[in-house]
Amino acid sequence: MRGKPLVSIVSAGLSKFGKIEGMYGRELFAEAAKEAFERCPNLDPKRDLDALFVGHMGESYEHQGHTGAVAADWAGLIPIPAARVEAACSSSGVALRMGIYSVLSGLCDVVMVGGVEKMTHRSTPEVTEFLAMASDFPFEQWNGMTFPGLYAWMATAHMHKYGTTETQLAHVAVKNHYNGSLNPKAHMQKEITLEQALTSRVIAWPLKLFDCSLITDGASCVILTRPELARKYTDTPVHIIGSGHACDTIGVYEREEFTSIRAARIAAREAYEMAGVEPGDVDVAEVHDCFTIAEIIAYEDLGFCNPGEGGRLAESGETSLKGNIPVNTSGGLKAKGHPVGATGTAQAYEIYLQLTGQAGRRQVADAEIGLSHNVGGAGVTATVHIYRRG
Amino acid sequence: MRGKPLVSIVSAGLSKFGKIEGMYGRELFAEAAKEAFERCPNLDPKRDLDALFVGHMGESYEHQGHTGAVAADWAGLIPIPAARVEAACSSSGVALRMGIYSVLSGLCDVVMVGGVEKMTHRSTPEVTEFLAMASDFPFEQWNGMTFPGLYAWMATAHMHKYGTTETQLAHVAVKNHYNGSLNPKAHMQKEITLEQALTSRVIAWPLKLFDCSLITDGASCVILTRPELARKYTDTPVHIIGSGHACDTIGVYEREEFTSIRAARIAAREAYEMAGVEPGDVDVAEVHDCFTIAEIIAYEDLGFCNPGEGGRLAESGETSLKGNIPVNTSGGLKAKGHPVGATGTAQAYEIYLQLTGQAGRRQVADAEIGLSHNVGGAGVTATVHIYRRG
Repeated sequence: MRGKPLVSIVSAGLSKFGKIEGMYGRELFAEAAKEAFERCPNLDPKRDLDALFVGHMGESYEHQGHTGAVAADWAGLIPIPAARVEAACSSSGVALRMGIYSVLSGLCDVVMVGGVEKMTHRSTPEVTEFLAMASDFPFEQWNGMTFPGLYAWMATAHMHKYGTTETQLAHVAVKNHYNGSLNPKAHMQKEITLEQALTSRVIAWPLKLFDCSLITDGASCVILTRPELARKYTDTPVHIIGSGHACDTIGVYEREEFTSIRAARIAAREAYEMAGVEPGDVDVAEVHDCFTIAEIIAYEDLGFCNPGEGGRLAESGETSLKGNIPVNTSGGLKAKGHPVGATGTAQAYEIYLQLTGQAGRRQVADAEIGLSHNVGGAGVTATVHIYRRG
Repeated sequence: MRGKPLVSIVSAGLSKFGKIEGMYGRELFAEAAKEAFERCPNLDPKRDLDALFVGHMGESYEHQGHTGAVAADWAGLIPIPAARVEAACSSSGVALRMGIYSVLSGLCDVVMVGGVEKMTHRSTPEVTEFLAMASDFPFEQWNGMTFPGLYAWMATAHMHKYGTTETQLAHVAVKNHYNGSLNPKAHMQKEITLEQALTSRVIAWPLKLFDCSLITDGASCVILTRPELARKYTDTPVHIIGSGHACDTIGVYEREEFTSIRAARIAAREAYEMAGVEPGDVDVAEVHDCFTIAEIIAYEDLGFCNPGEGGRLAESGETSLKGNIPVNTSGGLKAKGHPVGATGTAQAYEIYLQLTGQAGRRQVADAEIGLSHNVGGAGVTATVHIYRRG
């Protein structure tokens, strides 16, 4: 089915991202769902939606699992068949894959896929511990490894092998904070300087405070349908034309290489082949910048540059809003924020806005092909989706 | 697609259920996968499997989330696209639904669906707390409600409305323990008497120790493919001909009725209609007897009897191995055990054995149509699947 639309996005919603006090995750999800419903007045949610897939990473934050049903209940969708999908920080990227399966299966015509996480009411040590559950327990967590350490490991390997510099990492942060300053739903809406990034305190060398994404509350969703039904719901559908999903070993220590994410390369290849497009065709991309090094590695894994050239691409400005291939126009996980379970469909939301001309001050002119890249754990799960303006 | 096979089960595996010391959940999953692979020598797991869906309820037990990838890694399946699906105790029932979507989508030809939980290394208060995360946090957990209490609530309502008795509840326990005594993989393989059940200590009245399912370690899986490919892998496929999935409010307090599980009724109706069969056509069923009252309510929700008659059906012996409609021939959650995330596909495993004549001393003669009924939370999520001998 090369190049053919798999499914179409007919609406999307996003809660405000940030430190949202006094709201449960379920309420954030309802806020995102409400935006999606309001954008799509031809849709009767209770009548038309056939299934709900909810990316949610950690039941510890709110002592609440069974999050598919919880989200369904608070979005007013009971008795819809709802499921929580968990694949760490790629939970809603994988949920999107499930949504695509469900529509292609013929059992569902219209489905909602979303994600949610409520994190900021927990202390940083608690959040660090809860996130670490997505890494290997006996061989990583147990020995004190947490995610900043795992990505610092990848960063030092990349520096050693390719000469990538701290300044190149900082360029990613500066770019994404600038983009976030243009996004009214972003967690951080302020620009930073290269100097600020480089002199911020070290978290796990070479990663400093501004190399790390944010602990954020938020929810996101998209509504999918069969391409032939899309015009019933909107005049401006966005088609998903490629979907890739792959996994690697849970333990980073089991890998042969630390400077690339093999699961992302496999997922990208699958998505590009299905879509019938090349990396050079992509007009706008949201990539998983949980740490700045991750965005640099993503450039390489997605074929935006050759292996080892990601740092120089970051420095060149070609991935900024005015560059050849704008990346993380939303601000990315770095500045928009990273409510982990919500990130995958938040990326899809941004691509939806960009391809329908609704991205406001951060709009990429005439964007036709978009891409999202969502990674769970330290390169353990990856999904890549490719979108085309309808 | 009424009556048409949706997908075919070509193999299945189950770890030993019980208190398994010195093994991680990932190792139990590998044990189940190994049985499935050994049953199906024509399958090359790494080459042929296109996706893995893993039901897993609680990341707290082993401080390990991201369980789809973990299971994939330890079953030797990397870089397969793997996902954890969570819907409380119906996690792998819902994963089965995802597996069906994936095969029907045309993106996958052969997939593995399984489930896993490692619970017994935790104290009973810890397990009770972790399980409670599947119920509503602000309105149930926070006020001290746990699952025995929630099901006791349903039991007293059923007794009040229909005159159901403690003795009828005990009949379910006696039957399922007898069946478990015939299952070499069951957690408890000993018969009990009605007297023992009735005089066991009260957990949450009217539920006594023998009215409650077991805290168990275990894993299960099935391998699905398109019906037209099934004979490539086995001479004895089992077709899934109906699938239903629905949800109800997360809080039991929000419901209009406590004596029936609406999500199960909706899921059953969907599955029966898809399958083109009636309750009377079912030769063998695995139902979600997390507590004895749940099996009695399942009889009614599945149409094996009229509302209110479940207690009398239990007492009549018609659901025993020699009865008209044998239920929980495996021993059920009650005696085989309830490793929560593994239960849904463990039910599918039992139905697979029954419909292929491999159920040993508990074999139901000439079983052609099977059914599984898997519930998450206190009636929050339900899946029903209907199977036909191939």
